[in-house]
Amino acid sequence: MASNNEVQNLTAEQEQWSVYSATRSTVNEKPLSSDELEKLTKYFHATLYLCLGMLYLKENPLLQEPLKKEHFKPRLLGHWGSDAGQSFTYIHFNRMVKKYNLDAFVISGPGHGAPGLISNFYLEGVYSEVYPNKSEDIEGMQRFFKQFSFPGGIGSHMTPETPGSIHEGGELGYSLSHAFGAVYDNPHTIALTIVGDGESETGPLATSWHSNKFLNPITDGAVLPVLHLNGYKINNPTVLARISEEELIKLMEGYGYTPYVVAGSNLDEMHQAMAGTVETCVQQILKFQKEARDSGKALRPRWPMIILRSPKGWTAPRKVEGHYLEGFWRAHQVPLPKVHDDPEQMKILESWMRSYEPEKLFSKEGKLVPELRELAPPAGKRMSENPITNGGSLLKPLKLAPFKNWAIKIDKPGVTNAASMANFADFLTEIVKDNPTSFRVMGPDETESNKLSAIYKAGKKVWVNGYLPEDEDGGNLAPAGRVMEMLSEHTVEGWLEGYILSGRHGLLNSYEPFIHIIDSMVNQHAKWIEKSLEVSWRQAISSLNILLTSTVWRQDHNGFTHQDPGFLDVICNKSPEVVRIYLPPDGNCLLSTMDHCFRSKNYVNVIVADKQPHLQFLNMEDAVAHCTKGIGIWDWASNDAGSEPDLIMASCGDVPTQEALAATALLRQHLPDLKIRFVNVVDLFKLIPNGYHPHGLTATEYASIFTNNKPIVFNFHSYPWLIHRMTYKRVGQNLMHVRGYKEKGNIDTPLELLIRNEADRYSLAILAIDNLTAVLGNTAAAVREKLLERRIESKNFAYEMGVDPEEFTNWSWPF
Amino acid sequence: MASNNEVQNLTAEQEQWSVYSATRSTVNEKPLSSDELEKLTKYFHATLYLCLGMLYLKENPLLQEPLKKEHFKPRLLGHWGSDAGQSFTYIHFNRMVKKYNLDAFVISGPGHGAPGLISNFYLEGVYSEVYPNKSEDIEGMQRFFKQFSFPGGIGSHMTPETPGSIHEGGELGYSLSHAFGAVYDNPHTIALTIVGDGESETGPLATSWHSNKFLNPITDGAVLPVLHLNGYKINNPTVLARISEEELIKLMEGYGYTPYVVAGSNLDEMHQAMAGTVETCVQQILKFQKEARDSGKALRPRWPMIILRSPKGWTAPRKVEGHYLEGFWRAHQVPLPKVHDDPEQMKILESWMRSYEPEKLFSKEGKLVPELRELAPPAGKRMSENPITNGGSLLKPLKLAPFKNWAIKIDKPGVTNAASMANFADFLTEIVKDNPTSFRVMGPDETESNKLSAIYKAGKKVWVNGYLPEDEDGGNLAPAGRVMEMLSEHTVEGWLEGYILSGRHGLLNSYEPFIHIIDSMVNQHAKWIEKSLEVSWRQAISSLNILLTSTVWRQDHNGFTHQDPGFLDVICNKSPEVVRIYLPPDGNCLLSTMDHCFRSKNYVNVIVADKQPHLQFLNMEDAVAHCTKGIGIWDWASNDAGSEPDLIMASCGDVPTQEALAATALLRQHLPDLKIRFVNVVDLFKLIPNGYHPHGLTATEYASIFTNNKPIVFNFHSYPWLIHRMTYKRVGQNLMHVRGYKEKGNIDTPLELLIRNEADRYSLAILAIDNLTAVLGNTAAAVREKLLERRIESKNFAYEMGVDPEEFTNWSWPF
Repeated sequence: MASNNEVQNLTAEQEQWSVYSATRSTVNEKPLSSDELEKLTKYFHATLYLCLGMLYLKENPLLQEPLKKEHFKPRLLGHWGSDAGQSFTYIHFNRMVKKYNLDAFVISGPGHGAPGLISNFYLEGVYSEVYPNKSEDIEGMQRFFKQFSFPGGIGSHMTPETPGSIHEGGELGYSLSHAFGAVYDNPHTIALTIVGDGESETGPLATSWHSNKFLNPITDGAVLPVLHLNGYKINNPTVLARISEEELIKLMEGYGYTPYVVAGSNLDEMHQAMAGTVETCVQQILKFQKEARDSGKALRPRWPMIILRSPKGWTAPRKVEGHYLEGFWRAHQVPLPKVHDDPEQMKILESWMRSYEPEKLFSKEGKLVPELRELAPPAGKRMSENPITNGGSLLKPLKLAPFKNWAIKIDKPGVTNAASMANFADFLTEIVKDNPTSFRVMGPDETESNKLSAIYKAGKKVWVNGYLPEDEDGGNLAPAGRVMEMLSEHTVEGWLEGYILSGRHGLLNSYEPFIHIIDSMVNQHAKWIEKSLEVSWRQAISSLNILLTSTVWRQDHNGFTHQDPGFLDVICNKSPEVVRIYLPPDGNCLLSTMDHCFRSKNYVNVIVADKQPHLQFLNMEDAVAHCTKGIGIWDWASNDAGSEPDLIMASCGDVPTQEALAATALLRQHLPDLKIRFVNVVDLFKLIPNGYHPHGLTATEYASIFTNNKPIVFNFHSYPWLIHRMTYKRVGQNLMHVRGYKEKGNIDTPLELLIRNEADRYSLAILAIDNLTAVLGNTAAAVREKLLERRIESKNFAYEMGVDPEEFTNWSWPF
Repeated sequence: MASNNEVQNLTAEQEQWSVYSATRSTVNEKPLSSDELEKLTKYFHATLYLCLGMLYLKENPLLQEPLKKEHFKPRLLGHWGSDAGQSFTYIHFNRMVKKYNLDAFVISGPGHGAPGLISNFYLEGVYSEVYPNKSEDIEGMQRFFKQFSFPGGIGSHMTPETPGSIHEGGELGYSLSHAFGAVYDNPHTIALTIVGDGESETGPLATSWHSNKFLNPITDGAVLPVLHLNGYKINNPTVLARISEEELIKLMEGYGYTPYVVAGSNLDEMHQAMAGTVETCVQQILKFQKEARDSGKALRPRWPMIILRSPKGWTAPRKVEGHYLEGFWRAHQVPLPKVHDDPEQMKILESWMRSYEPEKLFSKEGKLVPELRELAPPAGKRMSENPITNGGSLLKPLKLAPFKNWAIKIDKPGVTNAASMANFADFLTEIVKDNPTSFRVMGPDETESNKLSAIYKAGKKVWVNGYLPEDEDGGNLAPAGRVMEMLSEHTVEGWLEGYILSGRHGLLNSYEPFIHIIDSMVNQHAKWIEKSLEVSWRQAISSLNILLTSTVWRQDHNGFTHQDPGFLDVICNKSPEVVRIYLPPDGNCLLSTMDHCFRSKNYVNVIVADKQPHLQFLNMEDAVAHCTKGIGIWDWASNDAGSEPDLIMASCGDVPTQEALAATALLRQHLPDLKIRFVNVVDLFKLIPNGYHPHGLTATEYASIFTNNKPIVFNFHSYPWLIHRMTYKRVGQNLMHVRGYKEKGNIDTPLELLIRNEADRYSLAILAIDNLTAVLGNTAAAVREKLLERRIESKNFAYEMGVDPEEFTNWSWPF
């Protein structure tokens, strides 16, 4: 249905916004012959016909009979608004894929407009190859329509079920960072990336434009962003669609791109404009790459990007029932929601669908006519079958040197002090070295602070944004680095997700408190993996490894804003098939844990380990055994051998383990008859009953460690309630007393912060005594008093001196 | 210590980045007399002297004797890197405050550089007025130095303890959105806002520049952003400091600003450049405001902003031990970390501090000399005492019409269907109308979708970004609207925080799943409030009210990405003094709850209520009574009157309540002898034992509702484990069986989604039967079988028909 151009007396500025003024294009060429033009329009119409079919129909897919109520799905779901613009973009890029034999795939920011692309994937045959019962015939088309946004079918975004997708777009903001992540180290790949103008308002997207400062034109591929301004969100105009075009172009130039405008609604003119523009952009990309690769100079080109202004809901009726539809926010979701019961709307829909002339597009059997089919690239080159979009199919195992090479030598547990993180950095350095094109380390400007800077020996920090002479004085920057740092948790997480979704490996390191910034991103990635598990053809990808350091207990000096270990609570709500949490107590356990995580697939692994020097407990052999079990009794710290324990002292996390051990030592020194069993937890999900998580201990296993009837003092790294949430079903849970971070903080010393949260050695020992009255009676009253005194003295010492007493800072295991 | 300009053979582009090339300024004026220049430099030096004192000293504040080891704090904390640039900016704006009698305050994005501003607040006397023992004399100065980043003292950011601050800056990214929020509806206020170049890389900051499209020049104040490019983050150059200046200027113009560059390191030249620039900006702001206010036309001016390039760690030694310090990332934190033990570093520090000539800046008694003191604005005008920065002092109660006016008429519980959210919207409309300059509703483009669009009758959506004729067809936009929508959860949350921190009221409405996007922001706000409670002079501000709708159970059609009710877990980790969670089961409860939240202060209130039509249960009187208690037995749904119940059926949340009631009805229909007590929870924290949260029930109160020894089937809105986390200490917790969202989703119908998570009526009834074997024996086996069958049939029906069976959609309470 052709758009009506209305006389609107627009101002000059409004003319730039309105898609109903004259068609405009930066590139003034008309590369298409009239035959090509006609075919492109037909192909475009075929995709749009399919889009409407997906939104409305469960029967009568080819309109072989007049529409009837029973042909409609009972609930009309999915989004129409951006379908046409996305399909238009995809079709024009197909032309380039064919002409230049490109290795390309597509990322759709406005995932809600999935029909625009899924219709293309069906037309070019990939959908039917992957899902044979969605065949290229009438029955297949009917099933293809019905399944869309239908119970038991597929969602209305670019979900994992959709071939050709590594980006669902259910939550907006991550299209560009995913695209850049996917082309890093893929020098021959172009990611056509459609950015919605709603999405463009999100913070993560707004800063991710700067990813171009981290893209090496020699060793990385390219991203072609298409900012699709259709002008409206759910119910509002969009910001970028309503600034002056001068501002918009400056914004994109300011982001470092060369923007090309294609604006209008006249289809023939738009086809010519887009064809010329897309080709110019592809030529520029290839030219920039050739220049850089020929010269060996990795400077930052002003990569092209396209600003596509097309009507919201393009090709829908301009007005329905007196209200604007096409070109207004009313076209955002399903345009004619009352087709079931309103004969007028049913008529409008039917004439709209027939206006695409399906009988000329599809054979009687329901297959796209051959002269249109040849518009798509041939098998092997279609964007929707690019193996990058099924990254697991490309995945090769990470080359991992034996981590035991970096074992920290331990003669006696709890005596040696060593920097676990810096030691792990040496192992990591080797991984960076051994996997020069398939492993990257990401971080928001904290890799050095997190004591991982040794890795710069193997791979510097990527920087394609200009150098100053000072940089030679320890800048550790390089255009072809292996570490990526930008002060945007969103961007580095997005890069890493894109990198692993396309079949590679990596690690994100972050301060613990600020990982909450990407709660929602990690959440979405976990959901992606979980759904992928149900999709038989999706191959497993490497795990998303998140190393949290600069942890809460050593953020004493940075204060309350830097103290939040609650990311674990967010992770624990995700599906047990997908999430893993490890809190290695020392350096050798950290090595073993990281090795395990790097080998794993399809998980979100969260590893929590502090960066400061810490007491070391286990030699490498014991560490491997302990981490393999994930939980265990530390005999060397226990004195219940051969008898029943009076108390279980348990710990999870490095600082909490030291305090729990110190509390154990205090108790054993003052109350030598007490039988204490010391338990350490590395793999947090061991605590959950089996059946609730694959790692969960059986009741028998749990009882063999914690008993069923003895008091447990559990010192935990994070908020204490998480342990109760995990163990509420365990027999003896009422004897479980957990200490952890209780959201009490300020400018503190490490010990003072522990005391404030009652997670220090004295508080733990007191807690134990208070729960051992059955064993101890009143005999421990004096000990309790003494511990209380020392707690107060320690705090006073910190307030007075600004540091902790030596008995804390230099403590070691005394037995 | 003067900076050494080094010959570096810079390229033209590098010269634009380097602060050591010639001083550059967009404004070419030299407005300062030599006397003014000298005084400004001295004042600047006084602040920097104080900064160093805060970082290093606990004794000998005026260097009355040579520095000795024991004068230093044992731990050197805080950040030096951005102190000088921030102080420089503040001092120059002080000049404008005096000259133009401005109503202004400051927001510091790089909160870690707090000494730069706190030193100013001390010099102008405010700090000593607020904290008399930090007096303007040697003893006061010594205490002022020592407390900084010292246990029991103040943090190294702009914490709540700091007068003049409403923005801590511990987590980066929110300076601009806070600033804009604070000046909305404050037409005479200017927020001087220092944006760090590290911060500028974050997503939230990158999109918050667009806040200018929502600022009305007539009714709102102004923000003067100063993008402080000191070039480096912790350990990396910053992105914006290394793009070409042409790009940078385009970026800022693209964001809609008129950028003014001030760049260099020569202090005299920089003073002249900054003085001229700041004055030009202030004049522009006042001119734009006057034009708009005289004409009555609220167009969008291209507001000024300043790009200030100054050296990182400005005025520190350029090199120490052969490595760059000033002008490089090494100046980020404490520049000379080894002063305790390295005599050379001690000497460098002493000569550096003495280079500021403290003896000429301070009297012998330690007070700033009078001729410098007069550079600061007089009492009453100092930015650090602006009452906006203690917003509670300006807070007036919200005018609230009686919410009972909007009572939904209920003749019989569980029969009427009504749209609770749309009904609440009418109450909200009245609030918008009655509080035309002190209440705003924020949302990320979802207010209409969330069924709150009735409020546009009282206040349209703010839009200062250009109009098209279509907007008259239901656009509901206005330059002076009361609803603010941008597709950035970060920005709208930041605006709301800024708005309430400055003494006003508001509401954020959002889809439930995407509120995780701002987990970390809400977290930081909760921390701000909690710390503010300990600061005696801070007055209480209105609560942060977050209304979550489009909830998980009605996101069945949008699929798995739109299903996450886990924000409550994040909130539950925050301090009980600060957080409140309400899940009103119906429309009258929603009215009562919202009225309560709007009256409250210093909380983060999270209210979860769905937007779709739902069964209504309580008449207004009962609703008020129920919400006041926060938890209660619903007698009308129970049949245990006068006897002990066999089962407690409990619910929390609207959809879960309907299912729990339906399960109760099924059980009573099939097993009429069963005594069931029905409990509903509105106020989630009632479940926690008293002592752990102010709302927690005592053990007796809890037992009077839940008993100690009867099975409880609890249907919960969110992840089920949260209930276990809250009740693990309750007697009878082992009989608590919770159902909720178990992270199982897809494209579903509402009932199918419930079934998938076993939170539907049939699953609940089966769960009850399975836990009543002691009462029922095997008598219920047939009933159980029947329920199971109906569950399967319902699911099959949905898969076949695409909708739920009528017995679900039209269900009502049968008794």
